[in-house]
Amino acid sequence: MGEISRRRLLTVAGAGAAAGAVGFAGGRETARAASEDVPAQSSVPVDHSVVPFHGRHQAGIVTPAQERLHFAAFDVTSTSRAELVELLRAWTAASVRMTHGLQVQSDTPPSYDAPPTDTGEAIGLSASHLTLTFGFGPSLFRDADGVDRFGIDDRRPRALRRLPHFPADALQEESSGGDLCVQACADDPQVAVHAIRNLSRIAFGTAALRWSQLGFGRTSSTSAAQVTPRNLFGFKDGTANLKGEDTDEVREHVWVSRGDDPRAPWLTDGSYLVARRIRMAIERWDRASLEEQEHKVGRDRAAGAPLSGGQEFTPPDLEIKGPDGPLIPLDSHVRLAHPKENDGIRMLRRGYNFTDGNDELGHLEAGLFFVAFVRDPDTHYIPMQRKLSADDGLMEYLTHTGSGLFAVPPGARPGGFVGDTLFT
Amino acid sequence: MGEISRRRLLTVAGAGAAAGAVGFAGGRETARAASEDVPAQSSVPVDHSVVPFHGRHQAGIVTPAQERLHFAAFDVTSTSRAELVELLRAWTAASVRMTHGLQVQSDTPPSYDAPPTDTGEAIGLSASHLTLTFGFGPSLFRDADGVDRFGIDDRRPRALRRLPHFPADALQEESSGGDLCVQACADDPQVAVHAIRNLSRIAFGTAALRWSQLGFGRTSSTSAAQVTPRNLFGFKDGTANLKGEDTDEVREHVWVSRGDDPRAPWLTDGSYLVARRIRMAIERWDRASLEEQEHKVGRDRAAGAPLSGGQEFTPPDLEIKGPDGPLIPLDSHVRLAHPKENDGIRMLRRGYNFTDGNDELGHLEAGLFFVAFVRDPDTHYIPMQRKLSADDGLMEYLTHTGSGLFAVPPGARPGGFVGDTLFT
Repeated sequence: MGEISRRRLLTVAGAGAAAGAVGFAGGRETARAASEDVPAQSSVPVDHSVVPFHGRHQAGIVTPAQERLHFAAFDVTSTSRAELVELLRAWTAASVRMTHGLQVQSDTPPSYDAPPTDTGEAIGLSASHLTLTFGFGPSLFRDADGVDRFGIDDRRPRALRRLPHFPADALQEESSGGDLCVQACADDPQVAVHAIRNLSRIAFGTAALRWSQLGFGRTSSTSAAQVTPRNLFGFKDGTANLKGEDTDEVREHVWVSRGDDPRAPWLTDGSYLVARRIRMAIERWDRASLEEQEHKVGRDRAAGAPLSGGQEFTPPDLEIKGPDGPLIPLDSHVRLAHPKENDGIRMLRRGYNFTDGNDELGHLEAGLFFVAFVRDPDTHYIPMQRKLSADDGLMEYLTHTGSGLFAVPPGARPGGFVGDTLFT
Repeated sequence: MGEISRRRLLTVAGAGAAAGAVGFAGGRETARAASEDVPAQSSVPVDHSVVPFHGRHQAGIVTPAQERLHFAAFDVTSTSRAELVELLRAWTAASVRMTHGLQVQSDTPPSYDAPPTDTGEAIGLSASHLTLTFGFGPSLFRDADGVDRFGIDDRRPRALRRLPHFPADALQEESSGGDLCVQACADDPQVAVHAIRNLSRIAFGTAALRWSQLGFGRTSSTSAAQVTPRNLFGFKDGTANLKGEDTDEVREHVWVSRGDDPRAPWLTDGSYLVARRIRMAIERWDRASLEEQEHKVGRDRAAGAPLSGGQEFTPPDLEIKGPDGPLIPLDSHVRLAHPKENDGIRMLRRGYNFTDGNDELGHLEAGLFFVAFVRDPDTHYIPMQRKLSADDGLMEYLTHTGSGLFAVPPGARPGGFVGDTLFT
């Protein structure tokens, strides 16, 4: 069994009959839906769990947050701009198909003599609301040696650079950064893992997986129709998150607007993705009194209501005082992260709980994989994180171990590819 | 904030009103269901996702395999038999509640001045078919120094000892073995993680987490009502698995029967749990031709039918020949694992796919966490694994990196505790 080149991998399918195959059940056949790249077939039922891939904006940002995550960062190993562009085209084509619940390249039976183009573990599963969201790291524009490998550094967005060091950062280089990122979200983890695996396979020879992270439960809602989930501190998380329905706020705080950055008009209708792997000291947290926990958070644990009173969605009153000072303490997370304390900025968070086994002390290696989409990290992330990392009472229980900042291009149009505004 | 002892942790709840708590929404309140330990409340709806904890056998074996897994192995750090028994009692009480969708100790509002008895992240979630299945490792009976810490070595089951070394084993000591194990399965991963976390917390001072493994997708069906899932080789897995409905076969191959082991009558109605963390070389697999893949497995990929013909559930015909020898090759997994080739033995497999990020080469750290329940590992696991590890063509793509064998006591009766037949 020899290796086959990616080019061959990308051309073997559609070759027709599969000599010797016993007959192809192709569960994913049931998932067909209309799209320019995915011709509708009236003979098969429509999969109602399809989130369209094409659009003005990439899916996976303001679309409702799914239950599971597989996030991956890649290093581009080729120095050829043409190969990079070819990869983005191939990723786009594969993404259109997989987000429609189809096999990565073709649902015709694979040739018996060649490796199947799809790895197969998602056959029979629905699209599961899979979204694939792509981003470009600062090192894609200028690598660690200052080299502009792909002739794009003059188009690098102003705010796209390595995030500064924050107090209490303990970043692991091997799970930070990356030239490219893919956020795969789906309601079925096997669908998300399948997508990353197949994109990684397509990238063979051009880009290699640098780090990846699975998340098992969303910590934020991005739609008003969703119940607020709980993070591993046991508290509702993301109550005040931006929702996709808040069209004006999303335009103001999430999407890069024409004119934002004269050097990078290609990023119009895109965004920035901030990723932070935040290890939680859950065993220490679990030994804190409910009072301490609620004071650190600034909300009650049971209902998620601000300590100033009311219900979950009652706006926090930062002024109202109790016998010992403000009801919402000065070092509470809710206060320090509140737009009023941050020049009115908001972000769209889309994080996930993770548990990666345990460490050698028998503590669960658990925490929050923070993902946020913002219009400009210089105004919408860095100042707040500077403040939180210095003053937030929760920081006693948090360690940031991974970090990445990526420019998220606008959505691909039918016939185009993700990032074509940058490369064409 | 000081630490509190486990005893205190176990007694603080039920203390009554929570000074200062804003009002307890207690989503898990909705999950109440009847049980001796969990009084029914007619005022709240029944949670239809409850799998009863009590019974002749432990749940989580022949009950339908759930979607997600969190498996944990613990080392007992105390040398007190009384503390070990206390732990098993506390684990039982907590398990009865959590499997009913209730908080770990009480749904009354926690005291404001003490740590909450439940870590909270599952509040609002249903029972999600949570099962908690407990096992005892050989080292519980006789530790590495040969010491019988708890006065039970004369009751050690004959077959309960460290599994032998198999060809191609590459076991990591830190993710193998353990005095105790807990298999937490649920349809919601947050419910499974919550259970292991809270059991780990209850164990503080008596036992410590040694290793743990999350699994994101079941690879076997244990009920005829379930669709056969796919493993990360892209093939349907567990087609020929024992199903809970096969009552006679289950009695024959899964449950320890009275008289099986004169030294361990306490294990009657229990079983043995074999756990193997199997890393799959999925990148190499993905470069193998469909023909090679199907020949290694012995089934077709699309439908899961044996290469001897028919449909998924057609029994493989090991004799039928093609032009180049048997249609089901001599080194295929299906042949080597078939009961006909293994003195008629069967096992009940209950494994899960896992992906734990990636290694430094950019390969996904992915595979199968194999879990099987058998009546006797000496007849039902070791001989087959010897053969598979030596002859199975699939082994070219597999590395066993973790291993554990545990005796699984019978189910607890209301008022009793898991393992009481051993300790009383």
